[in-house]
Amino acid sequence: MEAGGRLTEDALIARYFAPLAGAGADALRDDAATLTPSPGHDLVLTADAIVAGVHYFPEDPPASIARKALGVNLSDLAAKGALPRGFLLTLALPPDWTEAWLEGLADGLREASEAFGCPLLGGDTVRAAGPALLGITALGEVPAGRMVRRPTAQAGDRICVTGTIGDAALGLALRLTPEAPWAVALTEAERAHLLDRYLHPRPRLALAPALRRFASAAMDVSDGLVGDLAKMLRGAGRGAGVSLAAIPLSPAAASAVAAAPGLLDTAFTGGDDYEILCTVPPGQLDAFRGEALEAGIAVAVIGSVEAEAGAPVFSTEDGAPRAFASGSFSHF
Amino acid sequence: MEAGGRLTEDALIARYFAPLAGAGADALRDDAATLTPSPGHDLVLTADAIVAGVHYFPEDPPASIARKALGVNLSDLAAKGALPRGFLLTLALPPDWTEAWLEGLADGLREASEAFGCPLLGGDTVRAAGPALLGITALGEVPAGRMVRRPTAQAGDRICVTGTIGDAALGLALRLTPEAPWAVALTEAERAHLLDRYLHPRPRLALAPALRRFASAAMDVSDGLVGDLAKMLRGAGRGAGVSLAAIPLSPAAASAVAAAPGLLDTAFTGGDDYEILCTVPPGQLDAFRGEALEAGIAVAVIGSVEAEAGAPVFSTEDGAPRAFASGSFSHF
Repeated sequence: MEAGGRLTEDALIARYFAPLAGAGADALRDDAATLTPSPGHDLVLTADAIVAGVHYFPEDPPASIARKALGVNLSDLAAKGALPRGFLLTLALPPDWTEAWLEGLADGLREASEAFGCPLLGGDTVRAAGPALLGITALGEVPAGRMVRRPTAQAGDRICVTGTIGDAALGLALRLTPEAPWAVALTEAERAHLLDRYLHPRPRLALAPALRRFASAAMDVSDGLVGDLAKMLRGAGRGAGVSLAAIPLSPAAASAVAAAPGLLDTAFTGGDDYEILCTVPPGQLDAFRGEALEAGIAVAVIGSVEAEAGAPVFSTEDGAPRAFASGSFSHF
Repeated sequence: MEAGGRLTEDALIARYFAPLAGAGADALRDDAATLTPSPGHDLVLTADAIVAGVHYFPEDPPASIARKALGVNLSDLAAKGALPRGFLLTLALPPDWTEAWLEGLADGLREASEAFGCPLLGGDTVRAAGPALLGITALGEVPAGRMVRRPTAQAGDRICVTGTIGDAALGLALRLTPEAPWAVALTEAERAHLLDRYLHPRPRLALAPALRRFASAAMDVSDGLVGDLAKMLRGAGRGAGVSLAAIPLSPAAASAVAAAPGLLDTAFTGGDDYEILCTVPPGQLDAFRGEALEAGIAVAVIGSVEAEAGAPVFSTEDGAPRAFASGSFSHF
């Protein structure tokens, strides 16, 4: 213990993080870990950080914060068709951190790590005169050369999304304006659903094999469907037509939008969905959806890739184009 | 550009970081990168973050901050006998960041990345209502099973350090108390040497092959020689005898200590040396030192590992034990 009763960094690592360490990390007793990809596989690397007051509320349960930090990274691996192999954590602790908070964080990290099959391989803990920050580097693997890329959509491919879109953004709106008429009009179960989707990303790891087999391009939806789709197609030099009515809403999101139609913008341009956006050649679509369903994941076809480059066009059921004021939510 | 003339995250990445991207990172145009270790090799993973006001001065040149961030990570790889393959950067920008600062940072990162042969593979940029933070995950590789470990020193092994010890800690002291009599007594060249060692870690990558061949255990000296040696031996369940006079000081550090003998504590318990501390079996010592010299790296033998566990004993030339008040510097 240091003066003041605070744990030293070594004691903190031994108590809270060593129990999460995977093979190759030697209980975090060395300054580095080893990892060997499976024979014939490439490693897939991604890094995403979350910051208190930007990506989550400081008062969120620490176990939820940990689950979000790991979840947003594993969502990227899932979109790339990769199986998780491990992660490193950079943790910046604010001056007022407590051991109870850290214990909750470690608990959540252990649960998420076990649930997603992704052990801790190393990291660093620093203090910072600012908000808490959790930076994760996640490592996954794919058969050599088989990472599913973002800018490779082809004209004619069908555009698909998993699950439902907009729940997390509406959950955030609920946190920010809990007394709004639309918020008050929701049932308790609807509110709980939206709040949970904001707090707890569910990386679609079970979809990775089907993405590798059938998707021409993929990314996860983290900054809003409208902006992320535009980014995907900009990279491919393509355009798209999307049917608004085909974008899947949860019953809770549908209730919210029914009560306040302007929330459709929030739902489709807000962030934190952590669903998969992908393109699939028409001839592969049935097989893809079949495999996704076997993995327990609903896939909706929302439009098609068009040859001509340009911003995706969203149309209502009567064929009228619908513009979105804010193209993309930016956490930055 | 966002409102207010600030770059969006995507524009910032394209302008400043895409030019640093290595093969497998596709100019950072995807959400993940791929990396394949050389056949028959393990990856070696390490993560270290530096925070403004904790690990560096906010007014340090941004190119130096970038070089330090990468350098401290590559120092860990070097100590493990690994060759760098790439890194991911998590960058938390404070509210008052400027493009000039970011440009300097990117310049320094590019120079260090090229000098160390370690390309950028990915990362994340976030804003934070606090100090700047640079978190790096570095990936290296070693022939399978050959990572040099920390807790594997054997009784009788000789304890070696590279370069000189204490320069960076004295450079930091110089920053904090530039008007101290010992500081004023230094020559301009001595001051410049100490300040440079604090600002610019020099990871001992050229020593990695010799460490793999000859060292029984190794780590880098980042938190002070006294504390780091104690940590290494604690993990091995061994003790050590160290000759104080054998610990190599630079002429500048020797001048400082001559002017103020208490600075020996600063030199040997302060941090940021980024030299290599290793143990070598006596029969291998000449070969190890020969290979190190061929790589341009001076190695000093400072003591021996002893069978009985316990804190290392430091002795003066007349055989008297010398205690150090603070065992280890903690950045945490």
